[in-house]
Amino acid sequence: MRFRAAEPEALEARYRARLFNSASGMRTAVLIGTKSKSGNENLAIFSNIFHVGANPPLIGFIMRPINRERHTYKNISDTGYFTVNHIPFRAHAAAHQTSAKYPEDRSEFEACGFDPEYTDGFFAPFCADSPVRSGCRLEYETEIPVNGTRLIVGRILLLEAEDHCTADDGFIDLAKAGVTAVTGLDAYHTVSPPKRYAYAEPDRDPKSLHP
Amino acid sequence: MRFRAAEPEALEARYRARLFNSASGMRTAVLIGTKSKSGNENLAIFSNIFHVGANPPLIGFIMRPINRERHTYKNISDTGYFTVNHIPFRAHAAAHQTSAKYPEDRSEFEACGFDPEYTDGFFAPFCADSPVRSGCRLEYETEIPVNGTRLIVGRILLLEAEDHCTADDGFIDLAKAGVTAVTGLDAYHTVSPPKRYAYAEPDRDPKSLHP
Repeated sequence: MRFRAAEPEALEARYRARLFNSASGMRTAVLIGTKSKSGNENLAIFSNIFHVGANPPLIGFIMRPINRERHTYKNISDTGYFTVNHIPFRAHAAAHQTSAKYPEDRSEFEACGFDPEYTDGFFAPFCADSPVRSGCRLEYETEIPVNGTRLIVGRILLLEAEDHCTADDGFIDLAKAGVTAVTGLDAYHTVSPPKRYAYAEPDRDPKSLHP
Repeated sequence: MRFRAAEPEALEARYRARLFNSASGMRTAVLIGTKSKSGNENLAIFSNIFHVGANPPLIGFIMRPINRERHTYKNISDTGYFTVNHIPFRAHAAAHQTSAKYPEDRSEFEACGFDPEYTDGFFAPFCADSPVRSGCRLEYETEIPVNGTRLIVGRILLLEAEDHCTADDGFIDLAKAGVTAVTGLDAYHTVSPPKRYAYAEPDRDPKSLHP
């Protein structure tokens, strides 16, 4: 299958969206938890999460253009806080369901069967059964002028991971955590156990970290 | 395991990097191919690739701060072109090896055992055996002021995917393509076959696309 530059406008819109969402590869599916100023909880699936830096700890994601009511964006803008919750694979269909257009006063926690949890007085709700989750404060945002999407960068103020999936060197084993990868617009996967390697040096063979 | 906001500076640097790179989840490992103005080919592994938009087709990635010689960045800045090549899982160790600090005049294609391929006169080299690969032109870049990393956005001018992994609706089955997911700094995974769902509607159960 080949696609050439001149053609994207000619492709049917959903076909095009599936194709280019697939091309960007595997990503983590997360549920972003927020709360409005008036106290309404919101939970929405996102798949475009990425690492921005470790010191300070920063996480980023891409938000679609703000050309319709976007509750997650509004809550983050208004309050400054959000949570990023990895999804246990057993809950991936329920997580997909959070992408339906529920009205603002309807909590996707309740509609889709996730329990909100408040930890250490953090303003935004976490998913109670997420094995790896971060509480974030909005640190930076900017519009990407080419298509009006927004880059949102949050500072991780609180990170929780279940003990059984964390290694002594800081690595979190997401296969052991049993979380969900996503491809395209609508496809969910698990990942195989990791193969780890030592820091690479020129002209030495890659060194496996597994005994 | 818990981490609290006040502590990141106190963590050992590599531990901190592993921890927060893990927290951001699964990503696709890709090899970015570039060529310098003087004709030196470069190939480097990146793990922070994400979808920015489908119309026009845009792909983004985060580049570490430009505080040392970064051949990929220099080549993209100088020439405007790069390729994004998904990595067959059988080649993940060789792909990891491209992260070693080779001198500028040494091609990681040659040093790490990847064959460069030029398609349709595209300026930057592709990996010959990549099952899903994109030829991109630099469209936008910006510095993320919090930590000096750079957001690079490329426009996909040419997308190639092997026929056996592409579906009629535009979806590319990356499990079938046999490509590589990455977590943390150094861990590589395959993904399970996809579970796909129809577009979600409020108050209807998620509908599987599998018969």
